[in-house]
Amino acid sequence: MINLKQLLAQAETYEHKLPPLPATLTAPAGPAFASWIDHTLLKPEATAEQIKALCAEAREHRFATVCINPAYVPLAAGLLRDTRVGVCTVISFPLGAHLPAQKAAEARQVIDSGATEIDMVMNIGAMKSGAYELVYEDIKAVAEVCHQSKVQLKVILEMCYLTQREKILACLLSKQAGADFIKTSTGFGPSGATVEDVALMRRLVGTEVGVKAAGGIRTFKDALAMIGAGANRLGTSVGVAILQEARTSL
Amino acid sequence: MINLKQLLAQAETYEHKLPPLPATLTAPAGPAFASWIDHTLLKPEATAEQIKALCAEAREHRFATVCINPAYVPLAAGLLRDTRVGVCTVISFPLGAHLPAQKAAEARQVIDSGATEIDMVMNIGAMKSGAYELVYEDIKAVAEVCHQSKVQLKVILEMCYLTQREKILACLLSKQAGADFIKTSTGFGPSGATVEDVALMRRLVGTEVGVKAAGGIRTFKDALAMIGAGANRLGTSVGVAILQEARTSL
Repeated sequence: MINLKQLLAQAETYEHKLPPLPATLTAPAGPAFASWIDHTLLKPEATAEQIKALCAEAREHRFATVCINPAYVPLAAGLLRDTRVGVCTVISFPLGAHLPAQKAAEARQVIDSGATEIDMVMNIGAMKSGAYELVYEDIKAVAEVCHQSKVQLKVILEMCYLTQREKILACLLSKQAGADFIKTSTGFGPSGATVEDVALMRRLVGTEVGVKAAGGIRTFKDALAMIGAGANRLGTSVGVAILQEARTSL
Repeated sequence: MINLKQLLAQAETYEHKLPPLPATLTAPAGPAFASWIDHTLLKPEATAEQIKALCAEAREHRFATVCINPAYVPLAAGLLRDTRVGVCTVISFPLGAHLPAQKAAEARQVIDSGATEIDMVMNIGAMKSGAYELVYEDIKAVAEVCHQSKVQLKVILEMCYLTQREKILACLLSKQAGADFIKTSTGFGPSGATVEDVALMRRLVGTEVGVKAAGGIRTFKDALAMIGAGANRLGTSVGVAILQEARTSL
């Protein structure tokens, strides 16, 4: 059970004074920079051929994962077997507006199909309705399924829809519900990751939970700005180009 | 089993010469016009209060359904019990990129929660990959779940992503897989319903399957244009305003 009263009091304190930004994590240099990138293709019109190409690139450059829609998990899991590249997929994506039992069932199904990381969308409507216990239970149900199978859970907060107070609550609720990472954005909302949001998230979750920046990261400079603010994972569809920049900037 | 060879041959014939447009259905006049409208609120940030207001409007004006995200189905089903307003929800929305078993399970869950109509998104990536049998099986699995519970199934084709050939195939595959309606758009893609697409869909499915136009319908004039082209259901978030126009235009 969550102590909601305590959490709300903590959020109110943080509204007035945020915790300090922990020391920034150092991204691996050169080609190893790839290990902080989820190589992403979530467009609904993506073809099997494009997913195969994505997996080949991920294998070649050793990205952390490919981040793809559930329908392509079996294909990607087959192609990336015997590699260290993970298969990351999305749950209740991109709207987050499913019932907790649906999200948990969806998590179970993608894990059984070969997913090794899951990015779920928070119930944004519940957050906007002040139904914080529902937000928490929603994440917790998926976290339990994930952790039973040693799968990492990232919770997408879709920060563009949230007030400052809701952003703070979203970070605290996610951490308490068992998120391994919190993630800024789906990439399908009105706007993507911002440096300010990443820094806020890192302040609130400290060093125990990861922070993934996603949505609108187009260059190595963008990537470095996000990492400087506290991100330790990046979601982008242009990972190969960013990696090329990373190499030449050494 | 689907006879894919026959269906592909038929699609090729239709690429050269479309079947004629059947006689347009006549929309009910005046306030009864509401019975052709799905009163829609699918924004991820929609609050419980907004859903309650949507249901109150639907009850007052007697819309066909409220069309809402799965997380709000129990709330809407409770509020609309003892009315003739249906509860329509969305499956694999808006990307359509789930595995068939996930879509069927999702359908089962929303029906158990009180949904009376389901709008599912076709597997767009499978269509773009030429995996027509997968497109068919995906719809069929959900249709079977729906029809066991006397729930109507609408298949969202997301026409904006499709070539003419794919549009034709999507209509034929949906009809054959058991769709009760085909629907133009999610409202979350790059563009929404067009008069041309609605007419194409009506030509291809004849009068046995319904055609729902959705995405960008903002006025009574828009609504009439869609109906003139062959639509017999409209999805819109401005149904109350359209109904007001419909009344005063009599």
